[in-house]
Amino acid sequence: MKYKTLVLPTRHRLDDVCSVACRKLIEQHCDPIWNELDRDLTAAELSDLIGDAEILLTSWGSPAITAEMLARAGRLRVVAHAAGSVKSLVPESIFDRDIAVFSAAPRIAWSVGEYCLTALLTMLNRLAEWDANVRESGWKSGDLRRRELTKKRVGIVSASSTARAFIRLLEPFNCEVLVYDPYLEAAQMARLGVQKATLEEVMQCEIISLHIPSIPETKHMIGAELLSLIPDGGILINSSRAAVVEEHELIAQLQSGRFLAAFDVFHAEPLRADHPFLSMDNVLLTPHIAGDTVEGHQALMYEVLSDVFGYLGGAQPKYAVDASKWAILA
Amino acid sequence: MKYKTLVLPTRHRLDDVCSVACRKLIEQHCDPIWNELDRDLTAAELSDLIGDAEILLTSWGSPAITAEMLARAGRLRVVAHAAGSVKSLVPESIFDRDIAVFSAAPRIAWSVGEYCLTALLTMLNRLAEWDANVRESGWKSGDLRRRELTKKRVGIVSASSTARAFIRLLEPFNCEVLVYDPYLEAAQMARLGVQKATLEEVMQCEIISLHIPSIPETKHMIGAELLSLIPDGGILINSSRAAVVEEHELIAQLQSGRFLAAFDVFHAEPLRADHPFLSMDNVLLTPHIAGDTVEGHQALMYEVLSDVFGYLGGAQPKYAVDASKWAILA
Repeated sequence: MKYKTLVLPTRHRLDDVCSVACRKLIEQHCDPIWNELDRDLTAAELSDLIGDAEILLTSWGSPAITAEMLARAGRLRVVAHAAGSVKSLVPESIFDRDIAVFSAAPRIAWSVGEYCLTALLTMLNRLAEWDANVRESGWKSGDLRRRELTKKRVGIVSASSTARAFIRLLEPFNCEVLVYDPYLEAAQMARLGVQKATLEEVMQCEIISLHIPSIPETKHMIGAELLSLIPDGGILINSSRAAVVEEHELIAQLQSGRFLAAFDVFHAEPLRADHPFLSMDNVLLTPHIAGDTVEGHQALMYEVLSDVFGYLGGAQPKYAVDASKWAILA
Repeated sequence: MKYKTLVLPTRHRLDDVCSVACRKLIEQHCDPIWNELDRDLTAAELSDLIGDAEILLTSWGSPAITAEMLARAGRLRVVAHAAGSVKSLVPESIFDRDIAVFSAAPRIAWSVGEYCLTALLTMLNRLAEWDANVRESGWKSGDLRRRELTKKRVGIVSASSTARAFIRLLEPFNCEVLVYDPYLEAAQMARLGVQKATLEEVMQCEIISLHIPSIPETKHMIGAELLSLIPDGGILINSSRAAVVEEHELIAQLQSGRFLAAFDVFHAEPLRADHPFLSMDNVLLTPHIAGDTVEGHQALMYEVLSDVFGYLGGAQPKYAVDASKWAILA
């Protein structure tokens, strides 16, 4: 028996998130209906098709699943999202039914971890500037020096899956890692090899990385006072959501050049042409790509779907969304 | 009893390699003669002073110690070099006497390891290009994508101390690490978490890092045939010595744009103004700074000297040069 499976991503999106191995996995376990259009389905189209589906495969661009659709989806057992957040994909009420929701967020988190370490090493070592120096002056010029990461104090706000990936990558550097997370006990922190700290202690570290979910409680959580605790020459990284920081204060404090920052997320994306960040040389800007790598995206649907088949066979899932944590979910 | 100690580095060099803690350590254990000149001593000046010294502290710029000087240095027990290679600092005949030679090379190796990982992540993620894109176009442009390091095959030529630092930093990425080193057994490789491989196997990895000492036997060791094994889209890193690669062949193969490379060392330094590397956009150039970081240099004399005092007290030294390995020493 194969699972009736509705594959919502377009061919173009599948090229990104569904490897050859994943297509084989689908053919092996599923009776799939592929999206043959060159565009995402409309809500009406999905509503027409959902009645037969046991598994729904989604990704970026897939239409939101509404309570009305769920009422028609009598056979649905799994929604598997080959992308990150499911909060705008499914209603919380989906958990009232016996439907499991899977997200590839933990796999994406690893790419975000690699982004955080890379952004940090980029700012400490400034190899692109050394390269430009060599090309312009033939050799050394100015007073550029590299800085080591080893043994630095690193502060992490929120022990999310992206934070855990970053913490793992920091391990060989023997950093002192301080974590602020109201939901994690000191004993759990110790198992991660980090110390539980207050938000104020974290913001005083030489290196600070934000991994805060954007929920009503965290809006503008990092304001003027906390930003002023960042030490001179410090480094701030935000790969989570821009809304957690008071942008006006952030701009004001960065304009002094007192500390460095790497931002992958912004209050408005794309950045408006006159945004102050664009003329600052103490910030490293990337266009919301912390979770995007060629290899990471290729792995998304395969990892989620392998986990789904394990779950349907009775195994403990790794990528299933925990309904009890919906409120604090990114 | 304090040790009669000749401190050869200039004040300027001491600011770089001798921390405040190190100065205290010297005052505590030594009866020091500091270099009060604004330049390094001449050979004649060192020759005049060496007779009383029990410990000789050296660094970059210190005059070479000759057999003639050693004949006058009847009380000398330790030469401690707060820098890397000691091969041009002391004659091999120093080991015929009961004089121990210490080098900070293992501490410098750690900074080189950080350089290797940073160069690699810089080329895989290209964050400086993303930043330029955002500033020029306001957001994404072109077909730039990040690549993950996780699970890649990494080939290492020579398991030197710089290679070991790099291997340690690669650990959380779960790479498959292949090492070519004729002096290391498979069992020792396994303890490092790497696999013993042939030079040909190493050169076929997606990522290749050279850590080869520049000795007569290694000159032009990496020639046309080995370079042609590098896979398309591969990455070559050289932080050791340029002489180990046939430059003409390297330039020819890089000009095709077939693979990427990061070079910190060159056949002639500084690079001549018309060097082909300077106009290639698939190479990352740095001016021989792989071992240079602010924090790494600040630690050099302290780490070596702590080890010296331990050794003089009967402990096993960590930074002593092994006379039996002189021939293959970098």
